[in-house]
Amino acid sequence: MLVSRFISRFSRNSLKHCRSLVCCQQGQLPFPSSFFNSIPSIDKVWGYRETHCSGLRAIHGIRYQVYHERSSIIEEQMDPFSLVADELSILADRLRAMVVAEVPKLASAAEYFFKMGVEGKRFRPTVLLLMATALNMAIPKSASGGVIDTLSDELRRRQQCIAEITEMIHVASLLHDDVLDDAETRRGVGSLNIVMGNKLSVLAGDFLLSRACVALASLENTEVVSLLATVVEHLVTGETMQMTTTSEQRCSMEYYLQKTYYKTASLISNSCKAIALLAGQTAEVSVMAYDYGRNLGLAYQLVDDVLDFTGTSASLGKGSLSDIRHGIVTAPILFAIEEFPQLRAVVDRGFEDPAAVDLALDYLGKSRGIQRTRELATEHANRAAAAIDSLPECDDEDVKRSRRALVDLTQMVLTRTK
Amino acid sequence: MLVSRFISRFSRNSLKHCRSLVCCQQGQLPFPSSFFNSIPSIDKVWGYRETHCSGLRAIHGIRYQVYHERSSIIEEQMDPFSLVADELSILADRLRAMVVAEVPKLASAAEYFFKMGVEGKRFRPTVLLLMATALNMAIPKSASGGVIDTLSDELRRRQQCIAEITEMIHVASLLHDDVLDDAETRRGVGSLNIVMGNKLSVLAGDFLLSRACVALASLENTEVVSLLATVVEHLVTGETMQMTTTSEQRCSMEYYLQKTYYKTASLISNSCKAIALLAGQTAEVSVMAYDYGRNLGLAYQLVDDVLDFTGTSASLGKGSLSDIRHGIVTAPILFAIEEFPQLRAVVDRGFEDPAAVDLALDYLGKSRGIQRTRELATEHANRAAAAIDSLPECDDEDVKRSRRALVDLTQMVLTRTK
Repeated sequence: MLVSRFISRFSRNSLKHCRSLVCCQQGQLPFPSSFFNSIPSIDKVWGYRETHCSGLRAIHGIRYQVYHERSSIIEEQMDPFSLVADELSILADRLRAMVVAEVPKLASAAEYFFKMGVEGKRFRPTVLLLMATALNMAIPKSASGGVIDTLSDELRRRQQCIAEITEMIHVASLLHDDVLDDAETRRGVGSLNIVMGNKLSVLAGDFLLSRACVALASLENTEVVSLLATVVEHLVTGETMQMTTTSEQRCSMEYYLQKTYYKTASLISNSCKAIALLAGQTAEVSVMAYDYGRNLGLAYQLVDDVLDFTGTSASLGKGSLSDIRHGIVTAPILFAIEEFPQLRAVVDRGFEDPAAVDLALDYLGKSRGIQRTRELATEHANRAAAAIDSLPECDDEDVKRSRRALVDLTQMVLTRTK
Repeated sequence: MLVSRFISRFSRNSLKHCRSLVCCQQGQLPFPSSFFNSIPSIDKVWGYRETHCSGLRAIHGIRYQVYHERSSIIEEQMDPFSLVADELSILADRLRAMVVAEVPKLASAAEYFFKMGVEGKRFRPTVLLLMATALNMAIPKSASGGVIDTLSDELRRRQQCIAEITEMIHVASLLHDDVLDDAETRRGVGSLNIVMGNKLSVLAGDFLLSRACVALASLENTEVVSLLATVVEHLVTGETMQMTTTSEQRCSMEYYLQKTYYKTASLISNSCKAIALLAGQTAEVSVMAYDYGRNLGLAYQLVDDVLDFTGTSASLGKGSLSDIRHGIVTAPILFAIEEFPQLRAVVDRGFEDPAAVDLALDYLGKSRGIQRTRELATEHANRAAAAIDSLPECDDEDVKRSRRALVDLTQMVLTRTK
């Protein structure tokens, strides 16, 4: 424990020296808007950051090893998903019960992605249930007024409710996104818009949002209701930002990161914060929970952007290339443009012609775009782990196990291949 | 006042004898589901109802006359809209400010129907502001705990917020409905899906719903949040019911009325109830407010169904015929099927062939379908007026003026031509 804590403190201190890693509150950009304006060259910043990143990567490696060694000593099951498997199963049943609708077609549309086998890995609920346990420590009397000292069954039920609401908001956004994107598949099955038509997809999404709102209201916590309603707004804002870019915005890393926060990281970060708020945690701890979710979400999306180019292999062009073919410019291409400014003209002409995609892939292959995107993802994963390490110490074994699982998740996000 | 109250009591007592006019709570059908099953023939029921309706129509006429005579004596301006015109103007400004979004395209999409000149008659906000004043009487100490005795500025602000939220939910549903219906115009201007595309319409609708949810959360009243979230679910349920009818359902009056409650009456009835709840009114008064909204909403839609056939003229076929051309079967046709069962086969074959529309109009013209729909609308308008008359007595002039305006609205709904 001491070794691990030392390493995490060291890691955190290193982070403090990294100019780009400014702590970010809810609703703010992942990077302050002045970040890219106030510095002479983005290359310099990324260069500066990379120097630190190499160190951070090494530290992350050590930390991960330490956890794993300890894990083998005390023979604990460290798979984050298996730690909450039973609870996830109850939660999945409850979700299916929550989306039962009076009209049969609406019910089958709404439950489409909650069915057995289609329900995905339940990444978000896993994170939220682990976070609930990770924060299950005594609250300082001054903060809670002495009212909430221990985690009760009632509190756990309310935190599970946040996980259910988060999943409903997530699936609602998938349904509407699939309509917007004319998507043909989702999670390996036909997307709902193809199977049941656009109209039912829009309605099923609205239905899930209304059910989420009813469930939210039952929590009787205004801050939490407001937080998760704002997430819906962020999802919409992110999607609109992606749809309505100017040439300038499409090639801006700041715009890309802001959009990514709205589209991917806001939901998990704010629901992590909601878990802390329901537990009556201090503002400081709530921000740590938020920071964990935000950085995990950003790391997840950056890796997603890489996988879209590489797929399961290490080579370019083996991924689905879905983003670039839809004209969506992501981090790897943005980094490549910094090295090869002539790529900007290719991006501006669009990617309707497959030859343009090939040309962009050529430039990307010659650049360090993929590598630098992975490095940025690693930075965010480290910051997520650092947020967990910053939580007030607690000797409870369950709490420690859940915190380790949350840190392990930051590594799994980086090493995943799909 | 005494004459008016006598008539309203008489009217209410008559209503109690009308089998179909069962008092209906939020979330229930406008008619109990057993209503059409437990009776030998729907014709008999409507016949029975009609006998009473003639009486009710006469009573409504007297009541309306009494109000107007009194109105001329005390020289009050009785136009319901002008009574709250100044407040509506403030509310419209606030609505425009509330839908400002970070992304320009999203902002212009969201504010599309809140622009000057496009904003419609503001029917719902008018009703809600009048209801707020109509309920501005001292609350029994036992119900309020003595906390809320008079209407404060703060309460009025919160009730205005309900009006704003209601309008946002309404416009969000219009945006999504227009996408679903491939509508080309709305309120005399190009519908947003035509002007800006389906994608932005879906996103703008989601954005308005999220803003409505944030505003709702700020009211810090769980019952109200839950009430209005349920309305969104009702809107979705009603729309899905309309989209996914079986032949049996399409020709069922029960199904039609249930769908109409969800699509049209739920929003106004539950927001009227929210106005009462925020004022700390008793459950009994809240139900009266709800009943007013529900019956006004049903009357409004029934008249809408007639106007779709008749337009501004009294003759058939002069309306837009939009419903029937889209295969949507409304009350006039349902009543006509009762007289001419062979019309059912025409409905079942669908209305893609214009000759089928003409044939249906022939049957409708020979039937009492239009007349009986108007009679049913009148019944609901009377029940709405009766709900206002049932409110606890109050001598405050503002309160009395608003109540009269609410009753006048029930008549305006019946006599409107567009």
